[in-house]
Amino acid sequence: MERRLATRMQDLQTSDIREILKVAVSSSMISLAGGLPTPEVFPVDELADITREVLELDGPAALQYSTTEGDAELRQAIADRMARVLSIKANADEVLITSGSQQGLDLLGKAFLDKDDAVLCESPTYLGALSAFQAYQPKFVQIPTDDEGMRLEHLAERLADTPRVKLIYVVPDFQNPTGRCWSLERRQGLLDLARRHDAIVVEDCPYAEIRFEGEPIPPLKSLDLDDRVIFLGTFSKIFCPGMRLGWTIARREILEKLVLVKQGADLHTATLTQRQVFRFMTRYGFRAIIEQVRDIYRRRRDVMVQTLDQELPPGTRRTHPCGGLFVWLELPPEIDARIVLKKCLEVDVAFVPGGGFFPNGGHENTIRLNFSAMPEDRIEEGVRRLAAVLRREMEMEPAVAIGAWQ
Amino acid sequence: MERRLATRMQDLQTSDIREILKVAVSSSMISLAGGLPTPEVFPVDELADITREVLELDGPAALQYSTTEGDAELRQAIADRMARVLSIKANADEVLITSGSQQGLDLLGKAFLDKDDAVLCESPTYLGALSAFQAYQPKFVQIPTDDEGMRLEHLAERLADTPRVKLIYVVPDFQNPTGRCWSLERRQGLLDLARRHDAIVVEDCPYAEIRFEGEPIPPLKSLDLDDRVIFLGTFSKIFCPGMRLGWTIARREILEKLVLVKQGADLHTATLTQRQVFRFMTRYGFRAIIEQVRDIYRRRRDVMVQTLDQELPPGTRRTHPCGGLFVWLELPPEIDARIVLKKCLEVDVAFVPGGGFFPNGGHENTIRLNFSAMPEDRIEEGVRRLAAVLRREMEMEPAVAIGAWQ
Repeated sequence: MERRLATRMQDLQTSDIREILKVAVSSSMISLAGGLPTPEVFPVDELADITREVLELDGPAALQYSTTEGDAELRQAIADRMARVLSIKANADEVLITSGSQQGLDLLGKAFLDKDDAVLCESPTYLGALSAFQAYQPKFVQIPTDDEGMRLEHLAERLADTPRVKLIYVVPDFQNPTGRCWSLERRQGLLDLARRHDAIVVEDCPYAEIRFEGEPIPPLKSLDLDDRVIFLGTFSKIFCPGMRLGWTIARREILEKLVLVKQGADLHTATLTQRQVFRFMTRYGFRAIIEQVRDIYRRRRDVMVQTLDQELPPGTRRTHPCGGLFVWLELPPEIDARIVLKKCLEVDVAFVPGGGFFPNGGHENTIRLNFSAMPEDRIEEGVRRLAAVLRREMEMEPAVAIGAWQ
Repeated sequence: MERRLATRMQDLQTSDIREILKVAVSSSMISLAGGLPTPEVFPVDELADITREVLELDGPAALQYSTTEGDAELRQAIADRMARVLSIKANADEVLITSGSQQGLDLLGKAFLDKDDAVLCESPTYLGALSAFQAYQPKFVQIPTDDEGMRLEHLAERLADTPRVKLIYVVPDFQNPTGRCWSLERRQGLLDLARRHDAIVVEDCPYAEIRFEGEPIPPLKSLDLDDRVIFLGTFSKIFCPGMRLGWTIARREILEKLVLVKQGADLHTATLTQRQVFRFMTRYGFRAIIEQVRDIYRRRRDVMVQTLDQELPPGTRRTHPCGGLFVWLELPPEIDARIVLKKCLEVDVAFVPGGGFFPNGGHENTIRLNFSAMPEDRIEEGVRRLAAVLRREMEMEPAVAIGAWQ
């Protein structure tokens, strides 16, 4: 069997996230693992009404094959909304509807990456991007980061000395897994460097609208003077993830290639789903959901960071996310988060060990904690249990330093 | 720009089907081009009810992230239905839910094909499979066919002399584009040869249930004693294509690899769509739709073949489909179907020139005609206009032979 498979399958392994999601389904489990949005905001009743309306108005056309690019009205509505809420100027014909932004990543990998091409990414970076790109066997070059984003001196060096750089992949707003948000200076610096090296930038932007405090920082795409940024958006965090609806914004020349790739991949994204989301957008919009989500996640984030600060033993550090779904922990280098996870699962607490977010390995002393999926009391209890496990693990280790990345 | 793209993009070109679908949207056009199912059978009202029911019963879970393999109840229902209607024995955990069977093709390409691996296929073969596989840069080896399927002596030779055969890809029932159906003997012969050469067979089966006359012939998968057949199914022709829902049946070992690949491609197929189809299956089933579709397509096929037989000039041949959506024409070798198409479009008739269905080129004297999408009077008028164009084109050509492949 193995000998029949494509060589790329050697690199594709079952991910932590996947295995963890499997264990985290029992009702007694406190899951700080997956990245599930809180379901209480999903507009269940409204969608039933919307669906009837779509089917009455559009009739069988809502159930027929449609174009690969996506529903024309939905593409226009997304272009309009992006201009309004993120100051991104794009025409409808620069918007491609995808089956979640995950599909956007896969299409980009297929269109751009030959074996051993280089993808420059943050260290750590989003696991789903790794699993999409890995199928095309690139080399990942990890650029060190701090609380303001990629460290640009390292990015400049790698752009200069890495052969065959095809894509710079970044999640500037409330990144998965760290929750960190790039400063405006770093965003502009990245674009300057990309321009100087004529590199294409992929901006994965699922969380920008889930900001709890502080002023929004413009997306790279809104600062993109020479159309070198490819922007990935999704309805998963501002509406419902199970609809699997996202979009890619890119200049026509690139978009046309992505359309060709998508045609072979799934012909088009479901017609009815696109019509449902279009009607929901025009009828209700996403503001009410986003406001609810911000409020719920802000309170959950507060409980998580407060409990972490009270309970975590010295020698651990955390990020302080001003939005998004995740907090990132760094443990003393001697501690293996996979062993911590095993012990936590025994006390019904799940999280994602951070090592998987580093494509070239290492960093096994890191942890991603999700605060979007559990109520506050469960988060508090989960963090207490995690901290107790950590204290026992670290008892025999020398204390290092205490502090929070701010 | 071009230099940045992956080398695979050199092979991916806009397809005839796509361009034709674009021109065929005007209301005056008689389109014998696309493969659109007739929309009058789409259960529009029932789906509105079903959607409300799903949302009431499942609540937010119908809108949340779900597993890559697909909805457990839907997988079981598909396994049960495949056993009942096609005598295919599979467990639910051998069923993967995909975003249309087109995605199944893409996942198979990604899991199995390295550059220059060989895919053995019928000549002609389904264009969508070519566009899915082409992204992985295989060599296509075309096996000559006749009205009973692949000519097995040619298949045996190519299996013996072709290096790196990864997949044998076939559409045994009412193939797109020819409408032909393999005999039982050829099916068994193919499986014998596959066994002898230890080859994996991909059976793409969208049309088997759309049979107008004669006894059903068992799918390869139902005759598959050693689990070497991967079966692709879809709801597109027995329900609604715009839902983009299909399934792949394969032994666990292969299915697990496909799940890994799908995870990177789109995480999972839309949760709500899966729940809608599951509830529709259990509440209504597909029998009523299939009976309607058979009746409508049979009458349309009859009008098409009768008009063809009355109108076509000598020297042309056609297939006689006992099911499915397509009739295939072979013109005298001097006639170029692309030129015929241009002239037909001037009189508002569209079809797909057959050359695109041959991955290694040639055969420009062939035509695929669709009979599922137009009412009978339009089919009759469209075929008359096509025949008139053909007669003018062939006027200066020597007559060859008249006949229908039966």
